[in-house]
Amino acid sequence: MTEIASPLAGIFDHIEANRDAFVTRLMDYVRHPSISAHNQGIGEVAGMLVGFLRKLGMEAETVPTSGHPMVLGRRDVSPDKPTVLLYGHYDVQPPDPLELWTSPPFEPTIRDGRIYARGIGDNKGQHFAQLLALESHLAVTGDLPCNVLFLLEGEEEIGSPHIAEFVRAHADRLRADLVVTSDGPLHESGAPVVTFGVRGVAAFELRAKTASRDVHSGNFGGVVPNAVWTLVHLLATMKDEDGEITIEGLTEPVIPPTNLERDAVERLPLDLEAIKAELGLSRLDAPAGRGYFDRLMFHPTLTVNGFHGGYGGPGMKTVLPCEAFVKCDIRLVEPLTPDYVFDKVRAHVQKHAPEVEFVPLNGMLPSKTPMDSPFAEPIRRAVVAARGVEPLLYPTVGGSLPDYVFTKILGLPAFVIPYANADEANHAPNENLKIACFIDGIKTGAALLAELGALRR
Amino acid sequence: MTEIASPLAGIFDHIEANRDAFVTRLMDYVRHPSISAHNQGIGEVAGMLVGFLRKLGMEAETVPTSGHPMVLGRRDVSPDKPTVLLYGHYDVQPPDPLELWTSPPFEPTIRDGRIYARGIGDNKGQHFAQLLALESHLAVTGDLPCNVLFLLEGEEEIGSPHIAEFVRAHADRLRADLVVTSDGPLHESGAPVVTFGVRGVAAFELRAKTASRDVHSGNFGGVVPNAVWTLVHLLATMKDEDGEITIEGLTEPVIPPTNLERDAVERLPLDLEAIKAELGLSRLDAPAGRGYFDRLMFHPTLTVNGFHGGYGGPGMKTVLPCEAFVKCDIRLVEPLTPDYVFDKVRAHVQKHAPEVEFVPLNGMLPSKTPMDSPFAEPIRRAVVAARGVEPLLYPTVGGSLPDYVFTKILGLPAFVIPYANADEANHAPNENLKIACFIDGIKTGAALLAELGALRR
Repeated sequence: MTEIASPLAGIFDHIEANRDAFVTRLMDYVRHPSISAHNQGIGEVAGMLVGFLRKLGMEAETVPTSGHPMVLGRRDVSPDKPTVLLYGHYDVQPPDPLELWTSPPFEPTIRDGRIYARGIGDNKGQHFAQLLALESHLAVTGDLPCNVLFLLEGEEEIGSPHIAEFVRAHADRLRADLVVTSDGPLHESGAPVVTFGVRGVAAFELRAKTASRDVHSGNFGGVVPNAVWTLVHLLATMKDEDGEITIEGLTEPVIPPTNLERDAVERLPLDLEAIKAELGLSRLDAPAGRGYFDRLMFHPTLTVNGFHGGYGGPGMKTVLPCEAFVKCDIRLVEPLTPDYVFDKVRAHVQKHAPEVEFVPLNGMLPSKTPMDSPFAEPIRRAVVAARGVEPLLYPTVGGSLPDYVFTKILGLPAFVIPYANADEANHAPNENLKIACFIDGIKTGAALLAELGALRR
Repeated sequence: MTEIASPLAGIFDHIEANRDAFVTRLMDYVRHPSISAHNQGIGEVAGMLVGFLRKLGMEAETVPTSGHPMVLGRRDVSPDKPTVLLYGHYDVQPPDPLELWTSPPFEPTIRDGRIYARGIGDNKGQHFAQLLALESHLAVTGDLPCNVLFLLEGEEEIGSPHIAEFVRAHADRLRADLVVTSDGPLHESGAPVVTFGVRGVAAFELRAKTASRDVHSGNFGGVVPNAVWTLVHLLATMKDEDGEITIEGLTEPVIPPTNLERDAVERLPLDLEAIKAELGLSRLDAPAGRGYFDRLMFHPTLTVNGFHGGYGGPGMKTVLPCEAFVKCDIRLVEPLTPDYVFDKVRAHVQKHAPEVEFVPLNGMLPSKTPMDSPFAEPIRRAVVAARGVEPLLYPTVGGSLPDYVFTKILGLPAFVIPYANADEANHAPNENLKIACFIDGIKTGAALLAELGALRR
């Protein structure tokens, strides 16, 4: 610990001394739109990033994909040192609706200690902080403490359609010891967070057609099967009133949380009454006895995203609908895969309502890095060194991101260490990043490199 | 029998002799639009009818209601004779879409033995046939064989909103021994039909709101209750997979069919394969073992008319919907009433999903006249006399009409004796009435009066 404390202190001093210059340079960066959904500015910003990386002494280039290019950079210092792959994305969400922005989305503006701009939090401010962490090491010590790979994607905001393909094709160039992503927010209390996993997802549609046309409920009620009832009864066999998924075989393989994961969850802050008040909930979803984080981390969930069939207008219409559909997603925990889940749902539908059409839609694998990974402790120490407080350790989060490309395709431990404030308003008007969060992010990135550099391979 | 056969033969001859004139007069009548939904031509046509009735020597007038007026006519011949109340409606459906009519809806046109015009079958041609039946009796014998009341409504096509109120207010003027309605179609084989009842209906909506806003299924799946799941599980408690309504207490009072009703049903023709082919059915609705007519006549049915909640667009959207609603109707058999059913559904919802809002909509009582009514046999004989074949006797039909105002408010037996061809296309473009059906209707009406006239009170 002592051998890294000394250079880090100098690096932190350097970061503080360059605070205003770093902010100015970040504002220059986010001034350039790079909207993947509109294919706007992608090539220009990718080119800028290659320039930034080369200034850090990295080999850097854009690598084409079937979609927008990846930006890849590397700087090796020693085969005895670990290699960290820093992942981020340089594309941003479209800024609409423009009229709700206080200042224009691509004219970064500082108000009350925050920079307002599209992409400032998600994700430009965060990977720019990583870049500046490298730069600060180089400025103070003349070298990097460990080997560093940068992978910056240009399609994250449109669902990362090519990252798995890219990672498979370039696995040799992506050899590393761990992956660190800085994206998303700190805890709403401001506490730092380290996340070890994400849930996967398997989305599908169920379609019922019970007759060639809608009929009159008086003339045919009791005679013609009703497509809505068909789906209601099918759904009722898929999840019971107690909230348990009852699709045969689906939940059996689920790996229960480890003791480390359970301990971590017990240490997470939780204000259930505040959550219920904010969302207008009278109760949590079934099952009643399940812990809040258990619901989001350790169990698959079957959500009906939409159910539509028959008459939806005002008053009554005595129609018996012949067609209906539901859209569903199942959030996946280890070791569930979309293929496994689709097989189970297909078999369940075949058994309970063979006339219903099952249509698999998107899928994404879950990802989880063991909490006793040898990198967990250096990461924790880095956060403490940079911020002076212990990070909250999330075994996993409820949402789905393509982290599996790192853990499952590359076989690497992968961690998310977010830098943005919880109210960053990403994907929304007036996206912002607190300058303090940006500076703390640079320090966290710098401390992370230092901690990794203290490890031997 | 013999004393009525002779005058009837002369009356039938009169009808045949006046065939063309009757058709011309019917075409003149339907040329006048009387669209209740658009409040178009109502007063004019009601006035024409009063004129027609007065020419038959009836006391006739329009009687105001809170909506469109009723046309009421009466001619009493003897207190020793029964009084028949002939019900019909002079309003018609809107003719849209006009472009699908081969000839304009209010320019009656004969093609291939059919008159095409809006309202020709539903219901002007049918009550005009009843008028001509009276006229023919008067022309041949100089008198009517029984007392006759006419009640012609101007709001049937908008749901008869004021008929119950009217019948309650004018019960003294509507004293009769039976009610006969000529509306709807003959059997598709062309066979005549006599119907003794209708199912009632109770329509309602169920609304679920589980949170103050939709949330992301990843970030909140398993935590926030899903409005669609709430309604799915509630509905699944209301009707089981075997098709049985499981709302507590709802079906218990249902009166099973009488032996007469069961015998009548067994004599009804049924081509199940043709029905299945026409509607594209692979099977009838559950329960599997229930007879076709049992489904429509002797059991309540719970139809979901529509179910809507959450995302309905293309592809996937990982949303967890906080709002959803279903619209349902329950068809009622004796002795179920809308109030009884609403009470049972309300209590069921309160027990199984108290957070779901129950909203009662429209309701209509069922109606049934015993098949051993003393008027059943004279009616059967009248049909045979006019048409030479036995009528199909329907204990009840699946749909809902306000016949209860006659059976339950006035306490009268009520019968439906339809005159129109099965492919009359009522409520649709190219509505039509076969001239042969119109003429047979006049004869049936005439025979009915003769049969009733042979009875003593």
